[in-house]
Amino acid sequence: MASIFTRIINGEIPCYKVAEDDRYYAFLDISPMAKGHTLVVPKVEVDYLFDLDPQVLAGMAIFAQKVAKGIEAAIPCKRVGVAVLGMEVPHAHIHLVPLNKESDLDFRREKLKLSPEEFQEIAKSIAESIK
Amino acid sequence: MASIFTRIINGEIPCYKVAEDDRYYAFLDISPMAKGHTLVVPKVEVDYLFDLDPQVLAGMAIFAQKVAKGIEAAIPCKRVGVAVLGMEVPHAHIHLVPLNKESDLDFRREKLKLSPEEFQEIAKSIAESIK
Repeated sequence: MASIFTRIINGEIPCYKVAEDDRYYAFLDISPMAKGHTLVVPKVEVDYLFDLDPQVLAGMAIFAQKVAKGIEAAIPCKRVGVAVLGMEVPHAHIHLVPLNKESDLDFRREKLKLSPEEFQEIAKSIAESIK
Repeated sequence: MASIFTRIINGEIPCYKVAEDDRYYAFLDISPMAKGHTLVVPKVEVDYLFDLDPQVLAGMAIFAQKVAKGIEAAIPCKRVGVAVLGMEVPHAHIHLVPLNKESDLDFRREKLKLSPEEFQEIAKSIAESIK
């Protein structure tokens, strides 16, 4: 069965998309640690990040960098942190999280509750900031 | 002044090295979340990961993948997680952390205390497992 991320990429499940190219896709985490928390995924469905073809992994890093620069431009933060855990959804994904201090990257923190309008506005703002 | 990581790369400060090539360097975190917790750094001294030249970032992802595969082979774990926070040392670095469950990636956890002999043994075991 297709992963939830493949179904998002295919448009079968809605998301707040921020960027897409032929190999990668980025959309807002709907259970965000901070406003602008974004997931970057490869379109190829591989469970574990380090099982990706090295060239796909390398391209994913460059794609994530572009998205991170868009997040920085759209969301007030000191920098964008990165996390990869990947045990819940069997489709490799990188968390990009706007940080103001190191402790902001904490998966145990209570997640933000945002309205659909807030998610839409954030996604649009990041999408427009990506070069 | 050179960063602490540049001084490690230059051999001015000792470390438990696990891998090195012409552009990147990997060594054990001396305040590890888990046995095998490794830092991957570029030899070029750039503060913020996403300010790296995209090709240097892409190469760093491939280097980190090789190191992660070595960690997996040497350290019992389900997979290797990734974190980038980077506010403490102004030299871009990727944390590679052996994980058995998602909550293992937690910077608030009490860090392991290992003896120099244990660090040496872990570093040697990972280094020998990197292909």
